[in-house]
Amino acid sequence: MKKIGIADTMFSRFDYFPVIKEALEKSGKDVEYERYTVPGVKDLPVACKRLFSSDCDIIIACGMVGKTDIDEQCAHEASTSIQAVQLSEGKHILEVFVHLRESDTEKEIVDICRNRVYKHTHNALMLLFDQEGMQKRAGTGIRQGKEDEGPFMV
Amino acid sequence: MKKIGIADTMFSRFDYFPVIKEALEKSGKDVEYERYTVPGVKDLPVACKRLFSSDCDIIIACGMVGKTDIDEQCAHEASTSIQAVQLSEGKHILEVFVHLRESDTEKEIVDICRNRVYKHTHNALMLLFDQEGMQKRAGTGIRQGKEDEGPFMV
Amino acid sequence: MKKIGIADTMFSRFDYFPVIKEALEKSGKDVEYERYTVPGVKDLPVACKRLFSSDCDIIIACGMVGKTDIDEQCAHEASTSIQAVQLSEGKHILEVFVHLRESDTEKEIVDICRNRVYKHTHNALMLLFDQEGMQKRAGTGIRQGKEDEGPFMV
Amino acid sequence: MKKIGIADTMFSRFDYFPVIKEALEKSGKDVEYERYTVPGVKDLPVACKRLFSSDCDIIIACGMVGKTDIDEQCAHEASTSIQAVQLSEGKHILEVFVHLRESDTEKEIVDICRNRVYKHTHNALMLLFDQEGMQKRAGTGIRQGKEDEGPFMV
Amino acid sequence: MKKIGIADTMFSRFDYFPVIKEALEKSGKDVEYERYTVPGVKDLPVACKRLFSSDCDIIIACGMVGKTDIDEQCAHEASTSIQAVQLSEGKHILEVFVHLRESDTEKEIVDICRNRVYKHTHNALMLLFDQEGMQKRAGTGIRQGKEDEGPFMV
Repeated sequence: MKKIGIADTMFSRFDYFPVIKEALEKSGKDVEYERYTVPGVKDLPVACKRLFSSDCDIIIACGMVGKTDIDEQCAHEASTSIQAVQLSEGKHILEVFVHLRESDTEKEIVDICRNRVYKHTHNALMLLFDQEGMQKRAGTGIRQGKEDEGPFMV
Repeated sequence: MKKIGIADTMFSRFDYFPVIKEALEKSGKDVEYERYTVPGVKDLPVACKRLFSSDCDIIIACGMVGKTDIDEQCAHEASTSIQAVQLSEGKHILEVFVHLRESDTEKEIVDICRNRVYKHTHNALMLLFDQEGMQKRAGTGIRQGKEDEGPFMV
Repeated sequence: MKKIGIADTMFSRFDYFPVIKEALEKSGKDVEYERYTVPGVKDLPVACKRLFSSDCDIIIACGMVGKTDIDEQCAHEASTSIQAVQLSEGKHILEVFVHLRESDTEKEIVDICRNRVYKHTHNALMLLFDQEGMQKRAGTGIRQGKEDEGPFMV
Repeated sequence: MKKIGIADTMFSRFDYFPVIKEALEKSGKDVEYERYTVPGVKDLPVACKRLFSSDCDIIIACGMVGKTDIDEQCAHEASTSIQAVQLSEGKHILEVFVHLRESDTEKEIVDICRNRVYKHTHNALMLLFDQEGMQKRAGTGIRQGKEDEGPFMV
Repeated sequence: MKKIGIADTMFSRFDYFPVIKEALEKSGKDVEYERYTVPGVKDLPVACKRLFSSDCDIIIACGMVGKTDIDEQCAHEASTSIQAVQLSEGKHILEVFVHLRESDTEKEIVDICRNRVYKHTHNALMLLFDQEGMQKRAGTGIRQGKEDEGPFMV
């Protein structure tokens, strides 16, 4: 059985975990998961490292990024380090980062969070079980956090 | 026989794969290839890592980069990590990234995509089979995605 | 017994160490600690590396970041390297960096310093002893250095 | 006998190689060299890695950087990765990057290219054979690509 | 006996080395040193790597950073790589970088150079011999290159 790691933060103002659980259950896929919560995005990379040590096959790393330049810098440092973890393990980490700069309204941020984490949970399952399905969708403008844009029509 | 890895994304609004296939077939070179599709550019580095584990000799990594600062940051993180994969393997990855900032019209973006991936497929073949040909073109202002600029004439 | 590393700097205009000691004592947890002081933030990563060589289980790295662009660049380089240390050890480093850009008054900076290091000391203890407690707080908008923001209410 | 690696690109509009050859011949030093051409600057790091695998003792990596922000980002990624190659080998790579932002006239860019690569070829020889000569020039404002500035006179 | 590595550049318009020698002699500490000069700041990281291979216990890396954005980018790449060297060795490198953006007058730049390298030489000795002394100065606003700022008084 495949095992999905879920790393999330206390900093985030949205709780991604229940959405992931719901998406996994609805998928009907026989997967198990392990969760690891840390203070903020910069603590996620080593959390992922530790989840891989617990035999996870793929990880969903959920964070929220504040509005200041310092917050954006922190997210960049976290993402760079999450890249390093992926390469050292040869396994995927799907980054579900929502930046507060993406919208001015709380409602829209919440919508982005829910949409992005739901779709990325499905992406995690496709990466584990359905490379053929992914290839069919290549180049078709799929988005997480908002509506798909679709392929260029020219 | 040499094996070319092809990594691409669902995020992209252009499907690079058929152009690569066409360029490989027209080249008449006896190569095989393996494809790996992921959600977006930040998932490409570990996709390349895995393609190298499948004995690829060189990889073409195709992505599309959105217009926002966050998108550009993501591309930078992906590229930095693609560099790390190349060094760990001692093998080339040709990055076919098209940034939506490169043009305001969809038609021009599509032209850039097609031109860049076609020429980089030929570059992949030259890197595998024709270092002498590359050296002849050194310093001559070759471009991928637009017209060659040619050498300085002064 | 768990051992907490404490890395701090001469550059900082606030002495974080007594606050950490106070927080550890009040917690009633049976932990020991080791301190290592360096000139500035860019010296913290290797200080952390050395503290892990002294068998620390987690580290609190305290720095202060000046107001100029060069100072911010230094902090970014330090943070990137602190990420690398965490991955090489598979252990957490909680970064208590206070940026002088966060406020124009010395009083407010001092308040941020005290609040951030106090709360991150508790986070260090939670990471060592209480993953369940962390998971309960996931997605609830916890902050260090200022008031918690709480979860989105939409 | 010492061996110098020369990595260059098809993207560049100036052909650095003949200038390096001329500088090496005029030096009278008994060195051999190996050349490796790639498409652009982001392909130089792994080219250097491969040249070191061919027993090069030092490398001159020649690139040209376009005027857009994306070009500058690419150069930064290439340079970061060239740093990593140097550390993994414990050997120097002299980066001869000319940025098109350095001047608005083609004539001046060509002058910068020629001057920078000529002087850096001599620097490569000094790093291989004459550390004492380098130390004598320390702190004297030596430049590659333009006139030396000389030491501060205060 | 402890050995201090000194890495410096021909690019710099200030010769840091005599000031380091003077500071070491006045300290009365029984240390030896080894010097390694390179062209510019981007050559310092591998110079440090090589000095550590020569059994240095700590390194002072001296550079000068030009005024343009490209110069600042180079310094950032050098600093990032100097961080990597420190982590791979578990030993400190004190970076004495003076940015020409720090002042508009040559006289002030020279004052910054002299002050910063003198004080960092003492920091190197404290890191080698006097951790207790460093801890006493923690949080007291020590500066290199200008006057100490002292601790916050609130």
